[in-house]
Amino acid sequence: MRTNKVCTGASMSLDGYIAGPEETGFDKLFRWYSNGTVRVPTTRGDLTFTMSPVSVEAWRGTVERTGALVVGRRLFDLTSGWEGNHPIGCPVVVLTHRVPEDWPYEDAPFTFVTDGIESAVERAKELAGPGRTVTVNGGTIARQCLDARLLDEVWIDLVPVLLGAGTPFFDQLKNVPVELEGPLSMAQGIDVTHLRYRVRYP
Amino acid sequence: MRTNKVCTGASMSLDGYIAGPEETGFDKLFRWYSNGTVRVPTTRGDLTFTMSPVSVEAWRGTVERTGALVVGRRLFDLTSGWEGNHPIGCPVVVLTHRVPEDWPYEDAPFTFVTDGIESAVERAKELAGPGRTVTVNGGTIARQCLDARLLDEVWIDLVPVLLGAGTPFFDQLKNVPVELEGPLSMAQGIDVTHLRYRVRYP
Repeated sequence: MRTNKVCTGASMSLDGYIAGPEETGFDKLFRWYSNGTVRVPTTRGDLTFTMSPVSVEAWRGTVERTGALVVGRRLFDLTSGWEGNHPIGCPVVVLTHRVPEDWPYEDAPFTFVTDGIESAVERAKELAGPGRTVTVNGGTIARQCLDARLLDEVWIDLVPVLLGAGTPFFDQLKNVPVELEGPLSMAQGIDVTHLRYRVRYP
Repeated sequence: MRTNKVCTGASMSLDGYIAGPEETGFDKLFRWYSNGTVRVPTTRGDLTFTMSPVSVEAWRGTVERTGALVVGRRLFDLTSGWEGNHPIGCPVVVLTHRVPEDWPYEDAPFTFVTDGIESAVERAKELAGPGRTVTVNGGTIARQCLDARLLDEVWIDLVPVLLGAGTPFFDQLKNVPVELEGPLSMAQGIDVTHLRYRVRYP
């Protein structure tokens, strides 16, 4: 029996990008985190979202389901390792070729794994606890999970913008086409449609 | 006053493609035309769809709104010019560099325009009649309309599949990002989500 779902999610443009050319477009892609009226505090004192009620529900669902995260080294570096405090407030497994030597947040719930995606996901399942979801980010890690048939669900926050180029959410997939089932759920926020799909493996 | 809306639509994979590599993936992208129980005859005796009730409504909406089509030469050639009888059953304007010399359906409601997208859309508006929609296909023509600020709406039949590569619906856009408004409507068929968006020009 599979006790932990493995899921990935991203804010994605209608043409399939999670970043525009040269890391642009985030003002559009992440607008739904701040275009509403409901204040949503996070585990980080310096970060409060203001979302529409529908998006709050989608966000809280993600936070409540997620027991642990697996992230790639690129995202970890881009965010400065969230300064040891990820806004979802759960253990984080960082998949990397090289453990950082100067990581100053020794007490933070961050684990570095160097021996591949399967191992990272296994570690995250232990940390998540029974029945809780392992959420994997960003695109490269999600692709590795999909290629290894580890991914159960894909959550898309679909944003009505065409970026035209940039970083696709899913790129260089090994086994295409990948069929999905759903949406399992669909909720309309302000300038975002929250969609959840299940991966169908042949 | 604008009397005719100009719209485009396509069946698109979740990762933004309207065709997979080397013109594959159509079995997935167009599955919703035949995975339901409602028989939908077209103006072509040889072509009957069997759709879910929700998809029938989406399809009928498109057919009823559309007064004329603008298509590119590539789509025209790919479909053998629908043998002079497009399933939507309305006048068709073909934008091409060269009028075909051997077109055998002289009485068919097909018009060939060689002097650019503005001219093709103008001709289609005349043919559509007051208040009716001009629908433009496929991706290259839609892009030209978007670049020329002629496009009012984008209809996406979003299919839960990742094709990984192929022909993007929107590619090489001149003015990015393109912001959209909506979805104006959202309807869930079987293995397809019908979405309509309005283009926001700055």
